Amino acid sequence: MESNALSSPLPTSLATALTGQVGVLPALGKQAQAAQLDSLDRHLLDLQALLHEQLADVEGLIQGTRGPTLAQRAGHHLLTAGGKRLRPLCTLLASRLGPAAKDSNGTTHARDLAVAVELVHAATLLHDDVVDLADTRRNQPTARVLHGNEISIFAGDWLLVEALRRICVTGIDGLVPQALATIEQMIFAEVEQAQRARTLAHDRAGYFRVIDGKTAALFRWAMRAGARAGHADTATEDALVAYGGALGLAFQLTDDALDFDGDSKKTGKPPLADLAEGKVTLPLILLIDAKPEYVKDIELLHAAGLDAQVRSEVPWREAQERVLAGLQSTGAIGEARRVAAGYAREAAAAVRDLPGHAPECAALIAVAETLAQRTS
Amino acid sequence: MESNALSSPLPTSLATALTGQVGVLPALGKQAQAAQLDSLDRHLLDLQALLHEQLADVEGLIQGTRGPTLAQRAGHHLLTAGGKRLRPLCTLLASRLGPAAKDSNGTTHARDLAVAVELVHAATLLHDDVVDLADTRRNQPTARVLHGNEISIFAGDWLLVEALRRICVTGIDGLVPQALATIEQMIFAEVEQAQRARTLAHDRAGYFRVIDGKTAALFRWAMRAGARAGHADTATEDALVAYGGALGLAFQLTDDALDFDGDSKKTGKPPLADLAEGKVTLPLILLIDAKPEYVKDIELLHAAGLDAQVRSEVPWREAQERVLAGLQSTGAIGEARRVAAGYAREAAAAVRDLPGHAPECAALIAVAETLAQRTS
Repeated sequence: MESNALSSPLPTSLATALTGQVGVLPALGKQAQAAQLDSLDRHLLDLQALLHEQLADVEGLIQGTRGPTLAQRAGHHLLTAGGKRLRPLCTLLASRLGPAAKDSNGTTHARDLAVAVELVHAATLLHDDVVDLADTRRNQPTARVLHGNEISIFAGDWLLVEALRRICVTGIDGLVPQALATIEQMIFAEVEQAQRARTLAHDRAGYFRVIDGKTAALFRWAMRAGARAGHADTATEDALVAYGGALGLAFQLTDDALDFDGDSKKTGKPPLADLAEGKVTLPLILLIDAKPEYVKDIELLHAAGLDAQVRSEVPWREAQERVLAGLQSTGAIGEARRVAAGYAREAAAAVRDLPGHAPECAALIAVAETLAQRTS
Repeated sequence: MESNALSSPLPTSLATALTGQVGVLPALGKQAQAAQLDSLDRHLLDLQALLHEQLADVEGLIQGTRGPTLAQRAGHHLLTAGGKRLRPLCTLLASRLGPAAKDSNGTTHARDLAVAVELVHAATLLHDDVVDLADTRRNQPTARVLHGNEISIFAGDWLLVEALRRICVTGIDGLVPQALATIEQMIFAEVEQAQRARTLAHDRAGYFRVIDGKTAALFRWAMRAGARAGHADTATEDALVAYGGALGLAFQLTDDALDFDGDSKKTGKPPLADLAEGKVTLPLILLIDAKPEYVKDIELLHAAGLDAQVRSEVPWREAQERVLAGLQSTGAIGEARRVAAGYAREAAAAVRDLPGHAPECAALIAVAETLAQRTS
């Protein structure tokens, strides 16, 4: 089983899905050992064994999402430039907790919905890159740099259309309207985030509302879609959706912490990129709450945007040093990571007692715990 | 009937829908008389009588498409800033050619689909304004000027979601996938248009491919949606879809001609705006075919973009004069309008012999003939 996993043909392996690193299970094992989590290590091995074939199918379909037009090529470029495939993984795992998991219909639907959720995610990235005027994503030039803003907008539109078409094809009752409601939540959250950026808003309630809408909503839908594909009962579906929401928050909180303590070579983003875009995330919110005098440095770092020249000059670098030191001395990043870990525990608790699907539940728990610990 | 129509409570009356002018039936009558088309005049009166109530319902729902978020307000602003409501009119008329036209279900579905088609249209306008960096539309500042590009993108995304939700609600089999396929055609056409703009492409086949995808496709879907709501038989549905395609081409060709011979106070666009955005439309294609030496002036006019300063200077104004004179002397605009009129006749021919619905067919024919004659 292990050697099978190590020679995985997946361009994006499960290990990448969970850690953002290339290197499959050894890296995961090391991370798990470092945290002295032998059971976690074991669960991740189980997960790889469980889903290897289904993930390969999904990856094949994602890679196959192409076409001759520039919008399709731009969409395909982003889809194949890496990515953790975490949302499809959620859909596949959720689909296995119902009685239809092994029907050919159940499997096909789970696979199509897993692809659709990744396409929705990619569509939002393309529109975000235009909004943020981002030049790189996943260490590669963004579609807007390669092809112009208009192609990013249209490629995002097209991925959304393609995702909805795949959801339609399953014919599962109510899933299209639920997907539309989810996309609406994501749009409203993005709008609120854009508005907050203009004033560097740093209230906690608004921050949580934004990350719930922009990230947790799609994880909830990913879990619901899987549950519906597998014909899970209502209690199981509710538990899986609760898992998705908590996992999404844990994931986004961790992602936001990585803007401060991550390795930008691995995250593919310049340091303090979120702040440059006006996103005041939980570590900074905690810092400002504890020491309001840091607002000036935070404003300076934001005003520079992603301008490489300004960011190389002394005032920016000194402000960066002061803010990072402040985050250190107040323990704000550690606290943000503890909040993330709390949501990961909440996710795990939601599925711990689901009857009759021990390997899948263990895998979901392993995903939640690994995600909140990731360092890149 | 006439006085009823004259005191219409519709913010966008039928006359506006057909002529782009405010002033209801007298204006229409005048236009019809000028063209010595008494029968057309009569048909338009019939049309107003036929659809008054249904159009008011649709308008009420469009006006009611609002919400607290900035994306919703931006969408609502565009939806209520005028617009001809031509696509909803098509859906309503088409719905009346089937046996379910008078069922409460048929009427409700037709109304919901008529609203949806207008929302899809408005969504594309919002994304187009970002792509074209347009500052005004319908004589009002665009959403991107009022709220920034990001809000335009998200407002467009939201209108698309809202449109699809309304189509879902009807539960009519196959209509959501057909809407998605239509939106895909529109996206691909917009991408091709953006690519053509970079090289000022001026081949006729490419131009017709673009206007078919960006405009005719949605008219086809508007007619199909109406036909399905009214449970029209297959032959009638096919005829209505053929009408929609030809009408869409006639409409876009006329719109493109208005960039040269229209009154920019009425069209709400600066003169030669299409060329500024890199759109080489049929009149210019015909001019270049006849007199290739005009390419230099055309390039100069394009290079200036919408820059008010450059456009006020002598070189731009002289090039504009030369190109307009060239269009005049070669008869290119007249020829483009004749092509438009040909498609309007094709549209009319598609529905002329449909049995048993004389008033609706006459109305469709009147719409096609009036549209191809509009001067603003």
